[in-house]
Amino acid sequence: RFYDIAVIEGDGIGKEVIPEGIRVLEAAARRHGFTLRQKWHDFAHCDYYARHGRMMPENWKEEIGKPAAIFFGAVGWPDIVPDHISLWGSLLQFRREYDQYVNLRPVRLMDGVPCPLSGRRPGDIDFWVVRENTEGEYSAIGGRMFEGTEREMVMQETVMTRKGVDRILKFAFDLAQTRPRKLVTSATKSNGIAITMPYWDERVEAMASSYPEVSWNKFHIDILTANFVLKPQIFDVVVGSNLFGDILSDLGPACAGTIGIAPSGNINPEGEHPSLFEPVHGSAPDIAGRNLANPIGQIWSAAMMLDHLGEKQAAADIMGAIEMVLKQPSLRTRDLGGAADTQTCGKAIADLLA
Amino acid sequence: RFYDIAVIEGDGIGKEVIPEGIRVLEAAARRHGFTLRQKWHDFAHCDYYARHGRMMPENWKEEIGKPAAIFFGAVGWPDIVPDHISLWGSLLQFRREYDQYVNLRPVRLMDGVPCPLSGRRPGDIDFWVVRENTEGEYSAIGGRMFEGTEREMVMQETVMTRKGVDRILKFAFDLAQTRPRKLVTSATKSNGIAITMPYWDERVEAMASSYPEVSWNKFHIDILTANFVLKPQIFDVVVGSNLFGDILSDLGPACAGTIGIAPSGNINPEGEHPSLFEPVHGSAPDIAGRNLANPIGQIWSAAMMLDHLGEKQAAADIMGAIEMVLKQPSLRTRDLGGAADTQTCGKAIADLLA
Ligand SMILES: CC(C)[C@H](C(=O)O)[C@@H](O)C(=O)O
Ligand SMILES: CC(C)[C@H](C(=O)O)[C@@H](O)C(=O)O
Repeated sequence: RFYDIAVIEGDGIGKEVIPEGIRVLEAAARRHGFTLRQKWHDFAHCDYYARHGRMMPENWKEEIGKPAAIFFGAVGWPDIVPDHISLWGSLLQFRREYDQYVNLRPVRLMDGVPCPLSGRRPGDIDFWVVRENTEGEYSAIGGRMFEGTEREMVMQETVMTRKGVDRILKFAFDLAQTRPRKLVTSATKSNGIAITMPYWDERVEAMASSYPEVSWNKFHIDILTANFVLKPQIFDVVVGSNLFGDILSDLGPACAGTIGIAPSGNINPEGEHPSLFEPVHGSAPDIAGRNLANPIGQIWSAAMMLDHLGEKQAAADIMGAIEMVLKQPSLRTRDLGGAADTQTCGKAIADLLA
Repeated sequence: RFYDIAVIEGDGIGKEVIPEGIRVLEAAARRHGFTLRQKWHDFAHCDYYARHGRMMPENWKEEIGKPAAIFFGAVGWPDIVPDHISLWGSLLQFRREYDQYVNLRPVRLMDGVPCPLSGRRPGDIDFWVVRENTEGEYSAIGGRMFEGTEREMVMQETVMTRKGVDRILKFAFDLAQTRPRKLVTSATKSNGIAITMPYWDERVEAMASSYPEVSWNKFHIDILTANFVLKPQIFDVVVGSNLFGDILSDLGPACAGTIGIAPSGNINPEGEHPSLFEPVHGSAPDIAGRNLANPIGQIWSAAMMLDHLGEKQAAADIMGAIEMVLKQPSLRTRDLGGAADTQTCGKAIADLLA
């Protein structure tokens, strides 16, 4: 079996964790008898911007072609390019132009990871955040008026469509149906955000009525974030808009110990376009280039990618290897109280697959 | 000394915690020789809506008059009135029409309150959230198109003005200047919300340049919520937009143990309009009417109100009494592992002021 994979390192620690992800993918491929045909792309990073005045070549879609998936590191180097320019010119463009409307992120407390919440043990925290990934609060519609004067103001639209809201809710309810608890929690803020959020609530109610076996509830985003800390055990599948999903999928992994190991899939479920797999963390300029980064976010993303490609056993094996390595202080990275550097940790996971 | 106070209980546990707040205020007034002239208002609750089809009488401003402050419980009873209608017709209207542009909320880990974060002790968590309270994401501009069809969509504007952004930032930097650490943290999301948030960042930078003695940093809201859990000790004054401030001021108190004791001031710093003091928690339909609610959020709000009115010593005395009561299991309410009901707890605090 062959899979074409586009590989994009991006900026900062992206360049350190992608090689570890690839190392592990290759070990899994050898073990399970498939081949990943990699095409590495030297764009979607801020050095490219510095040279070309844009993040990607105009014909980036042609360049990328039709891979089975995109394996992505992290983008952003704010000293060279403001974040909104680097991200809108790369990652956010992929999400939209490849219609990767699901951003799927697990939140799981793993053995060996120090948990900031007192008394929580592996098993207590285990849920999915399903984030809408193409519309909502991340719009480019709006602008500035009375620029440079006392009357200056900016406006920006949040846009939600029935198509956009319904399809992410459907994904969440479908996912809940595969889980033992079958519970969907919707993130809203309909008491304050009085146009888009009541609409979101309406669609949740409509969708829920077609899933009689799935139970559901909703929380306003303020108290929902509080409950991530106070009662993480009550969640199963949490679905939110682009912004709310973004917040919850950083907060969730933090409650489970660290953003450093959290993966994500930017998924086009219909398979009309490639899906993209990347760690939740960013390019981390503060630790970049020092072999300090935790590669597990990238490696777990590799497992999600293989799962998406249908290589379920290979994905499960990588998860098993991650779990083994997390339990060993000598193989965990320093952010988790371990002693390993980026490469030692990545190599340990790859070796377990040999 | 006399102060005219408007009292509004609202819905649900508002009706149980307001009387405790008043009990404590009266004890503080007796002790310190001032008088609170109370005018209780029987509107801004959902029963009023059920009778009149609106949350408040048309002439509510006249009815309220020109009190020194408004002492407010909680609004909302979603079984009768959808939250966005009840809130926009009461609390959010006060905030806007009285130009209470600062929402000020302390986050403090108190002795006796069980903390969900492991290893944190009183003193480790002690910061303020300064929330913009009149504009931003809470706008009523927008609407729905193609209603009832597959093409249905909703749009809603976020509106930020230079006046609105600058004045809340100024309040935050002024506040930081009175604190030992003198640090402002700005909540942004300029990598994703690409129009309003880069503007917010720009104004933060401009404001910071007039406060050379105050240091500042910024975090995107996703990683900021994560850091509330992972590193709450790094914060001093955290400033955010209406929505981000809303989220952070629920998440913060949760990290410090409970929303139940968290107070807030909706402040018009110029004193052109009355300021409003209310607990952070809502009307809590699930426990309403059972003498179970924790009255400390309301009582701490009373202390903030007295502080605002210039009765600093009375405010400090209430805080001292709250601290005493929190340390005693027999006087704490059940949500904090204590044995007291709403009234027992409120009375204990009032008695300490006698
Ligand atoms: C009730 C709701 C509209 C309100 C808000 O979002 O402002 C509340 O959550 C708060 O924080 O005061
Ligand atoms: C980098 C940023 C634009 C991005 C987002 O907000 O979507 C990131 O935080 C994420 O969660 O993938």
